[in-house]
Amino acid sequence: MDDKLMLMIPGPTPVPERVLLAMAKHPMGHRSKDFEAIAGEITENLKWLHQTQGDVLMLTSSGTGAMEAGIINFLSAGDRVLVGCNGKFGERWVEVATAYNLNVEQVTAEWGKPLDPEEFRVKLEADKDKQIKAVIVTHSETSTGVINDLATINRHVKAHGQALIIVDAVTSLGAVHIPIDEWGLDVVASGSQKGFMVPPGMGFVAVSAKAWEAYKTATLPRYYLDLGKYRKAAAKNSSPFTPPVNLMYGLQASLGMMKAEGLENIFARHQRHKNATRAAVKALGMPLFAPDEAASPAITAVAPVSVEAEQVRSILKKRFDIILAGGQDHLKGKIFRMGHLGFVSDRDILTAIAALETALVELGVSNVTPGAGVAAASQVFAQ
Amino acid sequence: MDDKLMLMIPGPTPVPERVLLAMAKHPMGHRSKDFEAIAGEITENLKWLHQTQGDVLMLTSSGTGAMEAGIINFLSAGDRVLVGCNGKFGERWVEVATAYNLNVEQVTAEWGKPLDPEEFRVKLEADKDKQIKAVIVTHSETSTGVINDLATINRHVKAHGQALIIVDAVTSLGAVHIPIDEWGLDVVASGSQKGFMVPPGMGFVAVSAKAWEAYKTATLPRYYLDLGKYRKAAAKNSSPFTPPVNLMYGLQASLGMMKAEGLENIFARHQRHKNATRAAVKALGMPLFAPDEAASPAITAVAPVSVEAEQVRSILKKRFDIILAGGQDHLKGKIFRMGHLGFVSDRDILTAIAALETALVELGVSNVTPGAGVAAASQVFAQ
Repeated sequence: MDDKLMLMIPGPTPVPERVLLAMAKHPMGHRSKDFEAIAGEITENLKWLHQTQGDVLMLTSSGTGAMEAGIINFLSAGDRVLVGCNGKFGERWVEVATAYNLNVEQVTAEWGKPLDPEEFRVKLEADKDKQIKAVIVTHSETSTGVINDLATINRHVKAHGQALIIVDAVTSLGAVHIPIDEWGLDVVASGSQKGFMVPPGMGFVAVSAKAWEAYKTATLPRYYLDLGKYRKAAAKNSSPFTPPVNLMYGLQASLGMMKAEGLENIFARHQRHKNATRAAVKALGMPLFAPDEAASPAITAVAPVSVEAEQVRSILKKRFDIILAGGQDHLKGKIFRMGHLGFVSDRDILTAIAALETALVELGVSNVTPGAGVAAASQVFAQ
Repeated sequence: MDDKLMLMIPGPTPVPERVLLAMAKHPMGHRSKDFEAIAGEITENLKWLHQTQGDVLMLTSSGTGAMEAGIINFLSAGDRVLVGCNGKFGERWVEVATAYNLNVEQVTAEWGKPLDPEEFRVKLEADKDKQIKAVIVTHSETSTGVINDLATINRHVKAHGQALIIVDAVTSLGAVHIPIDEWGLDVVASGSQKGFMVPPGMGFVAVSAKAWEAYKTATLPRYYLDLGKYRKAAAKNSSPFTPPVNLMYGLQASLGMMKAEGLENIFARHQRHKNATRAAVKALGMPLFAPDEAASPAITAVAPVSVEAEQVRSILKKRFDIILAGGQDHLKGKIFRMGHLGFVSDRDILTAIAALETALVELGVSNVTPGAGVAAASQVFAQ
């Protein structure tokens, strides 16, 4: 049905009407006092959302651009880095680090399983002469629905004392508690089309004082992604290059909504949606791809056995205009992924589960009890 | 007056209502067939606008990001490059080239004067062993309102035979005739918030077959700005990283408007606005900063003598909600700049000139004949 699309993918995520309408305003000059006031308000609210007093810089880029900036501003060619790799995005940061001639050592886990913090501990403790300059970790691995144990990995990095921790929080920022200052995270990158409830086009990078120290001696070449330029401009509520004015109108509106809801409520909502979705999928007899203890609050991956993942996606799209994500790379056709990130309500979860049940019935899956998925989700919501 | 803003700056430029409303639609998944159809249509229309059968790639970036991509994808550290430099943007490309350790040789002209093509000819002819790998030229120098003689400079580059020509067309693309294929331009970069009539957030890079040959051996590090990734994805109407979906809705709408108007009409309109604006400024007794023969069709810079440039800007803003740009760097306070780029009609020019006249009268400028500016503009329009 036209104009009835319901996005349940990990990004772009649904965008509130007031954000869409804010974006439809005429642009203003980005070098004006009026715009500086908007930029200043946004920066303050980004700091609140990032739980930091440090810098949170805005880039016109995708999340990958933000993450690349987070890597290349603080390192030099040949620097040894540990990169956690248990999915498509972990692999991407390996590719970025390799493209810039860093000395990359991977800490891997099977796709669908979390990284083992012990492997980081062992490597970091063995590094007596402090050659490891950074540890790069994907927090919520969007490709598999796994959330890595950032708190524990970070504790091992802190024990090392020298290495920076650089975090891809693209699908975790604004969905789960990431106390940047309390944990001492050095670089945290994210993107607008995720927990921020804004269309794609902006990347964000939080930077610690320790990372800025490393910036002083880092020699990888950069210009557009040079965060020092953004920091200098941000001090005057400005930007080094033309910022995406209309997306910022939208971001101003969405951050206002997030402040009104409150961090704890936002995190609890994502947790609830994860729990309800997983309970429903289990009740429908389908295997979850990520284990309970490492399940992302942003996205749930399902590996159906008695039905094709792509058939499920196809029916949900054709019959109900609900868009789920498929598997990526070798998981193509093996899993489907249901996003519950950003502007998603309990009603949306019930809707998607009800549609999923109906699709399974239509596909003639034998072990499905109609109503069981919604019943399981309801029970989570009733708690 | 609230919501009465009239932008006469070189970017962001005014955005048509249908573009704004297109952007206010809910995002769709960027990996869907529906979105691929939009991306494919946009790419076809971008090729039409760029007058090329070659690649025109879309980046989530400002114009600077697009231009940096245009430089770093085709060169290696130590490569000798000639960079034309007669304003803020020429200086920026010197900075980018320097940041990436290129061997930079500048061809300079005073700010407000065009580059002399002869200087390029002499250097290129002297380069017998073909060490010059690229010539980097800013076509319309936004900071001064000067348009450089790209056609002649390009002829000298073609005579050299080896060097690539890399063009910053940020404020000329969509305003003036740039026949990329006919002239054999190798790399042409631009940004959405200019002639494209879309808010800021997207950069564009046209790439020739010769440039792709250079790409194969170019070794500067890059990932997010790696145009090879964009080319590969574009072949499937896709993008390597999440594209700015809502800005692309807007771009789809604006390119439709541009096709309806037609390239010749668009170029004639910009030419007419340049002529009308310059005739009016002359009639008001104010010196133009760029000479007639090198005046940009996108922006007119004025260097008032009997009144402060910032006073003029201030009155136009306060009394009429018309925003002009000021001078940059050492030209701050010395000039004001009136943009007539993109979605600007004859009516807008008359409006701005009428307001400018009124401001000069209010400021007590003695040699102003009230009505003379509008009369001069009218005469151009009547031709």
